[in-house]
Amino acid sequence: MTYGKTITIETQGFSDIKNITPTVQNVIEKSKIKNGTVCVCAIGSTASVTTIEFEPALVEDFKDYLNKFAPDNVHTRHGDTWGDDNGFSHIRASLMGPSTVVPVVNGSLLLGTWQQIIVVDHDNRPRSRNVRIQVIGD
Amino acid sequence: MTYGKTITIETQGFSDIKNITPTVQNVIEKSKIKNGTVCVCAIGSTASVTTIEFEPALVEDFKDYLNKFAPDNVHTRHGDTWGDDNGFSHIRASLMGPSTVVPVVNGSLLLGTWQQIIVVDHDNRPRSRNVRIQVIGD
Amino acid sequence: MTYGKTITIETQGFSDIKNITPTVQNVIEKSKIKNGTVCVCAIGSTASVTTIEFEPALVEDFKDYLNKFAPDNVHTRHGDTWGDDNGFSHIRASLMGPSTVVPVVNGSLLLGTWQQIIVVDHDNRPRSRNVRIQVIGD
Repeated sequence: MTYGKTITIETQGFSDIKNITPTVQNVIEKSKIKNGTVCVCAIGSTASVTTIEFEPALVEDFKDYLNKFAPDNVHTRHGDTWGDDNGFSHIRASLMGPSTVVPVVNGSLLLGTWQQIIVVDHDNRPRSRNVRIQVIGD
Repeated sequence: MTYGKTITIETQGFSDIKNITPTVQNVIEKSKIKNGTVCVCAIGSTASVTTIEFEPALVEDFKDYLNKFAPDNVHTRHGDTWGDDNGFSHIRASLMGPSTVVPVVNGSLLLGTWQQIIVVDHDNRPRSRNVRIQVIGD
Repeated sequence: MTYGKTITIETQGFSDIKNITPTVQNVIEKSKIKNGTVCVCAIGSTASVTTIEFEPALVEDFKDYLNKFAPDNVHTRHGDTWGDDNGFSHIRASLMGPSTVVPVVNGSLLLGTWQQIIVVDHDNRPRSRNVRIQVIGD
């Protein structure tokens, strides 16, 4: 059995982090699937999905590290070629990947107590970002 | 068809690496699923799952690089706020993600000869760590 | 329903990047699966799968960053022990993970307009690389 929904979230870019755990849980409940997996996937090449303990201090720490790895003011061939200055966004997104898959058990996400599903929008401007939530199982 | 099992492993932290390939293969056999995928997911926000050639020299190399990216003695806002000094653990875990999905073909994991499934526990202390092995297919 | 195919691609190593999106879409069409997910997984411990805007300037930028993170001339214990000088390849592969899962909706990959599925071969020599494309859904 498969059930999916595309959601749209408003993001600010520069690895802005949004907690979408309640939305994912809601889609699982609508799916009537009790046991399986859910794939949460950012549609687009400058965003990622992962998990984090979603509290403000750590959210800032994580953004700092992404900025240390691929600084938002760095010179890239992509920026030179296309003039959109978001080479760093692409590099962060490709490194982390677009999606994460998490188990569904007894109709619920199986996560740790302090573990939330987040979308990380690496782009260099505010966007309306589409994310697919795809549930598979029985 | 879906079949899942939660296993518990003892870890030492600081990106301690455990090879769980035989356990994952065992769960696949119990599932009777011949073709599909298996999602292996760390439950908690300071651990990751990936694959590696599991030999002692490379295991140490990989831990060195995680420590170079997010050093275990680094100052974080998360540590300041909560006093648990494991900001680096969270940063490593969110970068790598909590789970990996691997194909199941003819009742077996489809991996390279020198490729094993590992849990990487990034936390800063020994833990009993729960990991979900979720098999989907027919 | 499950449908899978193993493809072989020729790669040059040092994080050589190949766009396999048309091949993945073709396997989805052969599978007759309309809604579900596709897991694309590199078989072997020195390659990864992710998504990128596949244009030449960005492809070079991304390779630069992988080389900044784990330089291809770095000294590793793995190289010392086995003499194959590809410790950096393993480190990049384990960090990025071997696989990516993407949604299938109405018989097609659900990706952004500028988002392609790529295999990144981190090894230090040309290879024939096996990649599994595993489709699940109905």
